[in-house]
Amino acid sequence: MFDDEAVLFANEAFYRAFHDHDIPAMEDVWATDGPLACIHPGWPAIVGRPDVMESWRGILGSRQAPLVRCRQPRAFVCGDFAFVVCYEEIAGDFLIATNVFRKQGRRWAMVHHHAAPSPVPLVAEEADQEPRPN
Amino acid sequence: MFDDEAVLFANEAFYRAFHDHDIPAMEDVWATDGPLACIHPGWPAIVGRPDVMESWRGILGSRQAPLVRCRQPRAFVCGDFAFVVCYEEIAGDFLIATNVFRKQGRRWAMVHHHAAPSPVPLVAEEADQEPRPN
Repeated sequence: MFDDEAVLFANEAFYRAFHDHDIPAMEDVWATDGPLACIHPGWPAIVGRPDVMESWRGILGSRQAPLVRCRQPRAFVCGDFAFVVCYEEIAGDFLIATNVFRKQGRRWAMVHHHAAPSPVPLVAEEADQEPRPN
Repeated sequence: MFDDEAVLFANEAFYRAFHDHDIPAMEDVWATDGPLACIHPGWPAIVGRPDVMESWRGILGSRQAPLVRCRQPRAFVCGDFAFVVCYEEIAGDFLIATNVFRKQGRRWAMVHHHAAPSPVPLVAEEADQEPRPN
């Protein structure tokens, strides 16, 4: 698997865990050591694995947890790190997200997530395109 | 200079170029090769150095360009890449930003910028704290 495909796979695992409210899978997505941070929409930055994971347990454990789908992910790979830019579709609204990954052995582990409201709607005919690496 | 200090220095150079509307300095901040992306608030993602630089020339060349100040930057270094999370203060309003850097030789070059509205105000007594590496 090429690195850009592997990064998109890791990104997809993140959104699958998010969509399925699967807390153990979400814990697997994130790096187990080194710096971590997370900016949920409307939240201040959360720093460090314990606090980032606590935020996800709170979000995914809630009955009001949103159902999220990833749209138009693009992977940007620079050696052993990468970032993905994508849209998040939630009940017809869209966020735009930056997800940062670090290569740990053969896997790509998330080290940062930043999602924010996007006033720019997706172009309808592009909404269901396949992921495209860059 | 430690890497986290060098990353915060590169981040500061970005905001100095932004604040001063200094287009050549902004061009120096960004990596000259490899993947680049940029998400301005309310814009879709811009990909590749030519389009990213064109967007900055448009923003910084405008008389309505905002005066931006960086607040509370935190650097997260992972080997040869790093990201900074910070607030951007613009006319009393705040954005929250993720800035991603790649080490090119001895300098840290920006490869991604994502700024978005932050409904979370800064804590007033923290607004003028010195940068703190993590």
